[in-house]
Amino acid sequence: MAEMQTVETVVALRELVTRAKRNGKKIAFVPTMGALHKGHMSLVKAAKEKETFVVLSVFVNPLQFGPNEDFHLYPRPIEADLELCKNAGVDLVFNPSVEEMYPNGFASLVEVSGVSNTLCGLNRPGHFKGVTTVVLKLFNQVLPDFAFFGQKDAQQALVIKKMVLDLNLPLEVIVCPTLREEDGLALSSRNRYLTTEERLRAPEIYKALCILRDDMINKKYQQTDKYRDELLQRLAAISDSSIDYAEVVNANSLETLYDIKGLILCAVAVRLGRTRLIDNILISIPA
Amino acid sequence: MAEMQTVETVVALRELVTRAKRNGKKIAFVPTMGALHKGHMSLVKAAKEKETFVVLSVFVNPLQFGPNEDFHLYPRPIEADLELCKNAGVDLVFNPSVEEMYPNGFASLVEVSGVSNTLCGLNRPGHFKGVTTVVLKLFNQVLPDFAFFGQKDAQQALVIKKMVLDLNLPLEVIVCPTLREEDGLALSSRNRYLTTEERLRAPEIYKALCILRDDMINKKYQQTDKYRDELLQRLAAISDSSIDYAEVVNANSLETLYDIKGLILCAVAVRLGRTRLIDNILISIPA
Repeated sequence: MAEMQTVETVVALRELVTRAKRNGKKIAFVPTMGALHKGHMSLVKAAKEKETFVVLSVFVNPLQFGPNEDFHLYPRPIEADLELCKNAGVDLVFNPSVEEMYPNGFASLVEVSGVSNTLCGLNRPGHFKGVTTVVLKLFNQVLPDFAFFGQKDAQQALVIKKMVLDLNLPLEVIVCPTLREEDGLALSSRNRYLTTEERLRAPEIYKALCILRDDMINKKYQQTDKYRDELLQRLAAISDSSIDYAEVVNANSLETLYDIKGLILCAVAVRLGRTRLIDNILISIPA
Repeated sequence: MAEMQTVETVVALRELVTRAKRNGKKIAFVPTMGALHKGHMSLVKAAKEKETFVVLSVFVNPLQFGPNEDFHLYPRPIEADLELCKNAGVDLVFNPSVEEMYPNGFASLVEVSGVSNTLCGLNRPGHFKGVTTVVLKLFNQVLPDFAFFGQKDAQQALVIKKMVLDLNLPLEVIVCPTLREEDGLALSSRNRYLTTEERLRAPEIYKALCILRDDMINKKYQQTDKYRDELLQRLAAISDSSIDYAEVVNANSLETLYDIKGLILCAVAVRLGRTRLIDNILISIPA
C-alpha cells in the first residue's frame, strides 16, 4: 500500500487524483475542518469500504464563520490530524492555505435557498453560503465520485445534497450516522472547548432528544408544539445553557411539521457557556 | 463519421458524453440559446479544430431574462438550428426543457460579484446570476474540457472565466472573436428583431466604436472621459436610438479606466426601436 501523501496546492492535488483515476480508482472525498475525531474517521472508514482512493481535506473555511464566531480560535492540530489519517488509511490529505482557496479578488459565491434559511441558517447568517461555496470548490478540486458527510451536521448534509442535485454535480453524497461518546454526547471538534463542568452537563442535550423520540413513538401528544415545548424546557433546565434553536421539522425539507408522521428531524443548537453545540435525532413515525 | 445526435435529458447527455470520453475524446462545449448564426458556428469550428467531441446546447434560459425582457419572444427556430449544427459537424445537441434544467423546488444560484456588477449587470439586474447558474449547471452536465464563448458578449465571457477560476472548474474557457455582417453589424440572434429601417442604421454602432479606436490609437485626447463623450454623441446621433451604456474600461477588470493604456474594452448597449443590441471593441494601447 502506498504511503499517505499530503499536498497544499490544487495543482498537486489534481495531479495525484488524476493519477489515481487513470489507475482505475474511484475517488472518495471526506471534507473536514480538521481537529479530527472518531466521527470523521467513521467517514473515512465508509469511504474505504468502497475501495476507493480516499482524499481528506483539512481546511478551516473563513467564509463560513461569522464575524463574532470562533474562526481564529478554531483548533488546528494538524500533526495529530495527519497521524489519525495515516492510521485510518487515508490516501491523500489536502491541506490548503486560505490564500490557495481564496486568492486575492475571489468573488464567486453559491447559495442554496430554502433548506439553508432555517435552523443554523437563522442563527448564523451567511454560514451556509460559506459552506456551499467552499464545498463546491473542493468538489471541483478533488473531482470525487463519492463525498462523505456526517449526520451530526444534518442541515449541512441536506444543503450539500440540494446543491449537488440542483447544480448537476457528478458525484454521490453519502451521509453517515452521528458518532457519540459513551454518555451520548455527539462527537464534535468543538467539544474540546468545554470546561470539565460543561462536559459533564453536555450529554443532557442528547438525553432530551431521546426523551422526545420516545414520547413521539409513544404518541404522548397530538401537536408538534407540545413536543417542542417540552424539548425547550428540558434544554433550558441544563445549567448555564442558552438555546439557539430547538425545532421539530420535516427531515427532507426542514419545513415546520404539522403532523407527527413521516421522517422527522429534531434539531437543536445549544450554547454551554461559550461553546455552541449542535445535535439532532431522526425519528420515523409511520403514517 | 457518426450521425449527429440530439438529446433532451441530462441522463441521455451524460451517457453519450461518457462514451465519447471512454473512447479517448476530449469534450468541447458550445453553450447557446439557439437562434444560431455564423457567430455560433465559428465557435463550433474552433471546437472542431481541437479534434474533440463537440456538444452544443440550445437552451433559452429563463433565469437570465428580466421580467420585462424578451424571454417569451426570443426566437426558437430549432429545426433550422439542428440543420446548421449538422452541417457544421456538431456531434451532440443538448436541447433540454425548462423543467429538465429547473425542476420544481430548484433553489441554487451562483453569483460572481465585481465583473458582474457593471455594464449589462447594471441595466439587467440578476442577468449574470442567471447566466452563471445555467452555465455552471451545463458545465456539470456536459463535463467539457473546453468551453467556447463569443467576444461579442465580452462581459459574459469575463464573468464565466472568473467563475471558472474562482470555483476551480476543471475546464478551459476559450473566447472567439466577434463575427460581423459585411457592413460591420455584430452577428446576434436579436438582429432578426430589427425592422428594415433599423437594420440599415444598426452598423452605425460599430462605426462609432471604430472611430473611437482610431482616435485612441492616434491619441486624440488625454482623458478617457472625452473619448466616452464623443462615443455617446455618435451613438445618440443614430436616429431612434437610446443608449443603455457606453463605457471605456479596463478589459480584464471592467473597472473605470483613468489612463489610456493597456488592454481597453469599449462596450456599448444601444436600443434601436425595441431591440437592445450590444457590441464592443478591444483596443491595445502600449504604455
